[in-house]
Amino acid sequence: MSDSEFAFIDRLRLIATDPASRGLDDDVAVIGDLVLTHDMIAEGVHFLPTDPPASVGWKLVAVNLSDLAGKGAEPLAALMGVTLGGDSDWDERFLTGVEAACETYGLALVGGDTIALPPGAPRVLNLTAVGRGGASIPSRAGGSAGDALWVVGTLGDAALGLAVLKEDGDAEGPLVEAYRRPVPQLAAGSLLAPHATAMMDLSDGLLLDVSRLVSASNCGASIDLDALPLSRAFVAELGSERRARLTAATGGDDYALLAALPASFDPLRLSLPARTILARIGTLTEGDGLKLFDTAGEVPLPEQLGYEHRA
Amino acid sequence: MSDSEFAFIDRLRLIATDPASRGLDDDVAVIGDLVLTHDMIAEGVHFLPTDPPASVGWKLVAVNLSDLAGKGAEPLAALMGVTLGGDSDWDERFLTGVEAACETYGLALVGGDTIALPPGAPRVLNLTAVGRGGASIPSRAGGSAGDALWVVGTLGDAALGLAVLKEDGDAEGPLVEAYRRPVPQLAAGSLLAPHATAMMDLSDGLLLDVSRLVSASNCGASIDLDALPLSRAFVAELGSERRARLTAATGGDDYALLAALPASFDPLRLSLPARTILARIGTLTEGDGLKLFDTAGEVPLPEQLGYEHRA
Repeated sequence: MSDSEFAFIDRLRLIATDPASRGLDDDVAVIGDLVLTHDMIAEGVHFLPTDPPASVGWKLVAVNLSDLAGKGAEPLAALMGVTLGGDSDWDERFLTGVEAACETYGLALVGGDTIALPPGAPRVLNLTAVGRGGASIPSRAGGSAGDALWVVGTLGDAALGLAVLKEDGDAEGPLVEAYRRPVPQLAAGSLLAPHATAMMDLSDGLLLDVSRLVSASNCGASIDLDALPLSRAFVAELGSERRARLTAATGGDDYALLAALPASFDPLRLSLPARTILARIGTLTEGDGLKLFDTAGEVPLPEQLGYEHRA
Repeated sequence: MSDSEFAFIDRLRLIATDPASRGLDDDVAVIGDLVLTHDMIAEGVHFLPTDPPASVGWKLVAVNLSDLAGKGAEPLAALMGVTLGGDSDWDERFLTGVEAACETYGLALVGGDTIALPPGAPRVLNLTAVGRGGASIPSRAGGSAGDALWVVGTLGDAALGLAVLKEDGDAEGPLVEAYRRPVPQLAAGSLLAPHATAMMDLSDGLLLDVSRLVSASNCGASIDLDALPLSRAFVAELGSERRARLTAATGGDDYALLAALPASFDPLRLSLPARTILARIGTLTEGDGLKLFDTAGEVPLPEQLGYEHRA
């Protein structure tokens, strides 16, 4: 985010004092047992004008569902806001993607708004998703030194897919798919939530999001770069050396889950869906800040921890 | 709305099949006792680049609260989506207006999203408001022949205020205020909801919105133009002859309430807030469509019933 976005959000915190807001630190609001989240995506910023419209629709739904997954909430209903620029073919294909994601994850589209924008204005799309939380709705703030840090899903695929697309707009394959059609980890989120001391989805890069979790939890973290879950497609493209792992640790758009769990708890004994990728990537520590290491020893923190600048 | 917006919404109806959506005909979704609504406003379409930013923030909140008022729901919480274009002074003043409206109406801002847009792109702002409905949450569809049609608030002020502003960007006064700072009729909505057979807020022009109510209720309506509630400022500017009344009946942005009530029910005996303007403007009838009359007899329907074209 830019300085002006930070300033804006600081100002918002002074308004959003209701406990339901969770201090705006948690990506979601909690009203009773309902979990609400709202994400906007804009053409040229969060998706490419050349992205297939159906994948844009899928992604709009999936990024919001990923926020629900990060709180272990079950998808219930959504309201969608769409700007229409006059290209009804694009709009129709966009809706096909929205519908596919809603059907796949049992999300009922129940309302919203459409507005026409002048020609040439970038599309701005938004969704408000409502989920039903379980008995425990983990925040980012409950982790403590000694907890194990787990990741559900692989890291770096989407950022690498975007890089591939920027080289070749016609590129295809699993990395491009990861960028265009993220998969919210709803089942894993719901199974992990009762056990997690802190949990969130990973949207802006592992290191940046871990730094947010430890800051909210008033602790530090030690992360084993060698333990990061990488996909075969990622390794085929970039390898798995330290430099590739740092790329995976700082790329955005993963929509994986990050969970802090008591060290004694083994999430592998949960009935996770087949082929769920689950990796223990580190430990929460006393003090603050992040430390990285791999088999060769301590690794300096990269200058940029994730995807902070949105435009 | 344009043809492409209609086509888009028809396509959406095929997706939004959950009963909570109320067929997308009702401006709100209903989940348990919660009423949810979502409105977007865009610079150059729903507000002027020269409008004071605080009034834009007020209006964003107020137009959503007006949807809650139309269902008799009490404001609870909201999630806001804001595009940031780099003008932090504008953004700060916009938030002042958001905060004022939230405080005035007891709405807790609990979350949302901000995104940066490229310079020059029009601002697109949205709010999702959540309200708590009463025992009865009236839809548009419950009216029947014989019910009386009532309006809460005055008509035509905001549309006239916009026309005045287009002539003179520095204009001030109650008409300009009505355009910039609409007042959601929350107290009246909450008192009328238990008695209303159908209710909605008026955002796109009385005649257009009545035509939507009667279409949903499978009936017609007969409207007495002489009964339309006009403000003193409106009459001072345009008079109160038939032509002025037709202007008031077709202008958008009123954010007044429209309620169908049993003919035997007198809303004047409710404990409405002091200075609430309440007018019986007509009757629901057998058949379909609208009929207008005044003391001189039947009045032909104007070609344009309201504000359908948004860009």
